[in-house]
Amino acid sequence: SVTISNLDMQIGELDKNGFEHFMLKEIFEQPQTIEDTFKGRLKPEYSDIVLGGLHHVFPRIAKAGRIVIIGCGTSWHAALIAEYLLEDFAQIPVEVEYASEFRYRKPLLNKNDVVILISQSGETADTLAALRLAREKGALVLGICNVVGSTLSRETEAGVYTHAGVEIGVASTKAFTAQVTVLTLFTLKLAKTRGTISDEEYSLLVKELAEIPKKGRAILENNEKIRQVAEKYKDAVNALYLGRGTLFPVAMEGALKLKEISYIHAEGYAAGEMKHGPIALVDDNLPVVVVAPQDAWYEKIISNIQEVKARKGNVIAIVTEGDTGLKELTDDVIEIPRSHPALAPLLAVIPLQLLAYHIAVLRGCNVDQPRNLAKSVTVE
Amino acid sequence: SVTISNLDMQIGELDKNGFEHFMLKEIFEQPQTIEDTFKGRLKPEYSDIVLGGLHHVFPRIAKAGRIVIIGCGTSWHAALIAEYLLEDFAQIPVEVEYASEFRYRKPLLNKNDVVILISQSGETADTLAALRLAREKGALVLGICNVVGSTLSRETEAGVYTHAGVEIGVASTKAFTAQVTVLTLFTLKLAKTRGTISDEEYSLLVKELAEIPKKGRAILENNEKIRQVAEKYKDAVNALYLGRGTLFPVAMEGALKLKEISYIHAEGYAAGEMKHGPIALVDDNLPVVVVAPQDAWYEKIISNIQEVKARKGNVIAIVTEGDTGLKELTDDVIEIPRSHPALAPLLAVIPLQLLAYHIAVLRGCNVDQPRNLAKSVTVE
Repeated sequence: SVTISNLDMQIGELDKNGFEHFMLKEIFEQPQTIEDTFKGRLKPEYSDIVLGGLHHVFPRIAKAGRIVIIGCGTSWHAALIAEYLLEDFAQIPVEVEYASEFRYRKPLLNKNDVVILISQSGETADTLAALRLAREKGALVLGICNVVGSTLSRETEAGVYTHAGVEIGVASTKAFTAQVTVLTLFTLKLAKTRGTISDEEYSLLVKELAEIPKKGRAILENNEKIRQVAEKYKDAVNALYLGRGTLFPVAMEGALKLKEISYIHAEGYAAGEMKHGPIALVDDNLPVVVVAPQDAWYEKIISNIQEVKARKGNVIAIVTEGDTGLKELTDDVIEIPRSHPALAPLLAVIPLQLLAYHIAVLRGCNVDQPRNLAKSVTVE
Repeated sequence: SVTISNLDMQIGELDKNGFEHFMLKEIFEQPQTIEDTFKGRLKPEYSDIVLGGLHHVFPRIAKAGRIVIIGCGTSWHAALIAEYLLEDFAQIPVEVEYASEFRYRKPLLNKNDVVILISQSGETADTLAALRLAREKGALVLGICNVVGSTLSRETEAGVYTHAGVEIGVASTKAFTAQVTVLTLFTLKLAKTRGTISDEEYSLLVKELAEIPKKGRAILENNEKIRQVAEKYKDAVNALYLGRGTLFPVAMEGALKLKEISYIHAEGYAAGEMKHGPIALVDDNLPVVVVAPQDAWYEKIISNIQEVKARKGNVIAIVTEGDTGLKELTDDVIEIPRSHPALAPLLAVIPLQLLAYHIAVLRGCNVDQPRNLAKSVTVE
């Protein structure tokens, strides 16, 4: 049978709009796509968050005993960020699973559990198989995807679209930040409904969320500086990425970008795990990218940086604007504006995307169509 | 104040007993240390499992709403294996956390939750901090450690010792398999108590567990063969390790061993995630170690192997004895005896330990005292 779908797409979305590659264009679109994703969902004065697609099931979500979030690749990293946010603010236990693992297990799910499936395309084969298994078990299944009318959007009971627009680059960028934006809105609404967040913190967070696009634009102005950093490390054979808290999944996402498009073997780690193995890799050839804003973990991450420097590793630090201390201690710093730690992933990932992009371009790689990879993994 | 402790240690445990390195000695001790760890705990005819240290709290454990397992490095990998076992057999939701992350969060714990902390030394600083936080929250805290009288054993409410004997090599081997043995016993006892395992499956599993030492010895007889495989890959710059189910954490553990002692950047992945990024790294220079016994995931993992071969990667497969099909498809195979999939981690990790060992020796590395690493991370 033949299905005819109308693509909700405007002329111009499929050209590079003056950018050298789709990936660069999509990185630069993020202040707008983040705004598109929260705009219309944040009510005037931010008094409420409207997620229309979840309206009819929200009372059930608010009583969830457990939330299981499932994805692959970049979507799995968005899920890991949401685990921190949801457990901290909404105080519901969260479990994150790879779709390819979940689907072959006998999952412990019941009617009080909520399962959230994340996929940019909404067609990822393993994610759809996980969705069907979760439905069978009687859990409430929700979808977060970018493509309107996708299989994921049709087979879930309810869901939220990311408004990232068409993403052409195989390495996901704007779809990731849109996913994190949706998950942040979802967390705040759930925390407010459950009464697990104070009015003050809720107000602060929604106001700060509305500031993220402006701060994202400020980071993009450092593009040339980031390209210069990329020049220094373009011949690296390996790289480590470190972060703590919500910035641990961001470190993994930064490493994945580099791996996908530059073919440099980069690995993301929780910074506290470094001493349990990966520090053995550190020598004067190894770039170590450390996500190190001035948050509650700042002193800990400085200590991680000192350990890397003591072993002659090269440290590229993502720091809070004006942090002069880390400039002294590290080889290169890339500044990002100060923000609430819960929202820092939306900012910190941007320089990591740009760093991967420039390194890949400098190595002559095909950034929009990296070898061996497909945009949407529709086979198992 | 001065504390005097008696070390429960015999003369001879501190020499290499004819082996070139402590690590090799400890790898070879595993059939015995696994047996030491279950012996005396499996009742005659295997009708019951006795974990004396947990006796007084077992009724509370059996009613747990959730089990949180916390560790670092190799202990974290043992925890991930336990997550699969406990959810499958005892049907209790399990969450695994890095100690260094857990300790800085506001964990959602209550009196119905059980927290298990794993540390070989029982002195890992982050794990002890996590323990104290979990206690504060009112959870039942249990310890699994190897050193009698350690801080972990003193500060937990109850626990189980691994009987691995003194481990000198910085890269943990026999402590890991002893941890997995304890976690397997714990799972079986819990499943039996909760009535979530059939008598037949319980009997089968305890009988098969008693066979593991013999099967482990059979793997050690392949040592020279594994050394020959190591010769071929000793100059690798990077490596990937893939597995599914309980063998996904084993793949991560194999990668960690290589990283720790040979300084080759190896990374473990759930095999189903390969297409979401890491496959971009595959070319004719990349060794890919695939844990591929004939289990429920066998067809899936063959398909992963074919994808790597199509991109000219070198595949070293850990296969079930007599598997001729994978011999044709891959560059090198290392055989392990057939076993119940739940027990496969105890066998599959041994060739990965030996592979890392021989590669490190061939590269001239100091395997017992790798650079930058300490045996027990007693600082943050």
